[in-house]
Amino acid sequence: MEETTSTVIVQADEMQDCFSNILIKLGFTESNAKQCAEIFTANSVDGVYTHGVNRFPRFARYVRDGYVKANAVPSLQSKFGGIEQWDGNMGAGPLNGVHATDNAMRLATEYGIGCVALSNTNHWMRAGYYGWRAAKKGFVFIGWTNTIANMPAWGATDARLGNNPLVMAMPYNYEAIVLDMAMSQYSLGAMEQVAMRNEMLPVNAGFDKDGKLTNDPSAILATRRLIPTGYWKGAGLSLVLDLLSVILSNGLSTQEISKIPVEYGLSQVFIAIDLSKLGNHSSMAAAIENIIADYHRSIPDGGSQKITYPGERVMQSRKKNLANGIPVMKKVWDLITTLQTDTSVLDRVPYI
Amino acid sequence: MEETTSTVIVQADEMQDCFSNILIKLGFTESNAKQCAEIFTANSVDGVYTHGVNRFPRFARYVRDGYVKANAVPSLQSKFGGIEQWDGNMGAGPLNGVHATDNAMRLATEYGIGCVALSNTNHWMRAGYYGWRAAKKGFVFIGWTNTIANMPAWGATDARLGNNPLVMAMPYNYEAIVLDMAMSQYSLGAMEQVAMRNEMLPVNAGFDKDGKLTNDPSAILATRRLIPTGYWKGAGLSLVLDLLSVILSNGLSTQEISKIPVEYGLSQVFIAIDLSKLGNHSSMAAAIENIIADYHRSIPDGGSQKITYPGERVMQSRKKNLANGIPVMKKVWDLITTLQTDTSVLDRVPYI
Repeated sequence: MEETTSTVIVQADEMQDCFSNILIKLGFTESNAKQCAEIFTANSVDGVYTHGVNRFPRFARYVRDGYVKANAVPSLQSKFGGIEQWDGNMGAGPLNGVHATDNAMRLATEYGIGCVALSNTNHWMRAGYYGWRAAKKGFVFIGWTNTIANMPAWGATDARLGNNPLVMAMPYNYEAIVLDMAMSQYSLGAMEQVAMRNEMLPVNAGFDKDGKLTNDPSAILATRRLIPTGYWKGAGLSLVLDLLSVILSNGLSTQEISKIPVEYGLSQVFIAIDLSKLGNHSSMAAAIENIIADYHRSIPDGGSQKITYPGERVMQSRKKNLANGIPVMKKVWDLITTLQTDTSVLDRVPYI
Repeated sequence: MEETTSTVIVQADEMQDCFSNILIKLGFTESNAKQCAEIFTANSVDGVYTHGVNRFPRFARYVRDGYVKANAVPSLQSKFGGIEQWDGNMGAGPLNGVHATDNAMRLATEYGIGCVALSNTNHWMRAGYYGWRAAKKGFVFIGWTNTIANMPAWGATDARLGNNPLVMAMPYNYEAIVLDMAMSQYSLGAMEQVAMRNEMLPVNAGFDKDGKLTNDPSAILATRRLIPTGYWKGAGLSLVLDLLSVILSNGLSTQEISKIPVEYGLSQVFIAIDLSKLGNHSSMAAAIENIIADYHRSIPDGGSQKITYPGERVMQSRKKNLANGIPVMKKVWDLITTLQTDTSVLDRVPYI
């Protein structure tokens, strides 16, 4: 562990061991702790710190306080052909998410396409994780979750929609193309980071106190009136994803989840398609390569970096963080290392 | 037919008969003509004129010039369990779209979830049509199409992405909730209408000649540099939808479709889920009703109309147009009525 000003560098195996120790202390079985720790570490390695190391203390608090049941096992509620409904029994979101992804792949292997709908689960952390997992095994993956209400409909002032992340993934070049998009244009977390640097967002992302569209993150954080991605389009998509997750899983809606200020009891959908079962399987890699090559030939405007496909920058973070270690805010890592011996510090970690 | 200044009012049955007569003249069988005419009319009744009556002359030109084969029949290429690949054989997009939707529903009835991927088809007109069709029969529907390149990636200046409409639908209250969203923030057609009225768009929708974001539709029409819905998010989603439609159908990509300035030979995906096969089928209507009721309780900001769910305004247009007749631009209806006797006027209709 090498220290810089306010950041420490943590190697992936060290991080994973630390997470695992804490989870065992919080009551996870050794194998559940290991799998959960692996997911939080992978998300951090991939540069998605908000749903990796930075989020781990909140996850630990949810476990300690009983909102996340450490060793709950999902139970099958209903099945017909390629579709199954599972109850997550309030278990750890990442463990339930892996269970659902793997069962969707099992169904796809049998039926070509499979769908698992999951009720009563918890925050799955990074949506993209499940996309990477399925895509690297040769599957198309389409999945989404609902969330607590955190965004108004377009034209409304009160938050009744979740930002309901959607993921779509497919295999590519021994790795994957993974789109992982929340339905708000920016997350509160992303805006906080830009506000701390006293910078403006590159595009409008919410409303100020006078109801005007603005790219000033501090003004938006003051109203919490985020805009949906693509305005009315992201609002509509958010609503439909919530509706589908609820009717397919028989789980709770964003409205129901939002009744208390703790985000738990979510509804999720996991769809997998087994590409090896299709007649054109052998030509797919070349087809994808052609599309990506054309996309990369896009002419960047003056201010732009290279045009990247969804997942491309994740791959860059992964390579860098595996080679150099994972940069972690010192105060976050101090808290986490303290957790190994003293979980009472979780009292300081907010629920939302 | 009642005439106002530049608009005529056409009753739905009159419109459908007229379309059908023209299609028979262009070589469609009576039953194919009738089904195709029914779809163009339904899209017009629903207020989606751009993919109904206004688009009909272009469709007719594609048929006359051989890009759309009037009586092509889709052929099954590959199947495994709940997934099938069909070749559309360059038939009429709406007929192929209905064929694919109905087969996806057949597969869902057998396997719970079904997927039809369709290659070598043509413009399906309104994406939402297939969503309404499946949802009204009790299915969840998720489908999308690729298109000719008409939008740059975010940060790029040259159009290499399609606007690739995505539809998600489910049954609701004897009708449906149908999200039908293209991946550009606005279509060129919508911007042309606002520009004709010398108005500004409510939000930024593209770049002017100096590379600045603007809500001036004339400035954007001059550059044709549209923005993706949600900037980088809609760009990523567009790319992924193209990739998935290509690998799932073994069809052509946006890049390949865009080699000539005629939009044909598209790739599409149709996924259906049979809700009657799920354990919670009897409680779904109430679950949806609760979510919509909460959504409708959104507090509108000062300038906003009622907050509507996806498909709600379509229902309003449908009721109005069925009661009062369909308003059609006089010059469009004059062209269409002329087509009944003289298809040479199609020479005036542009391909794009």
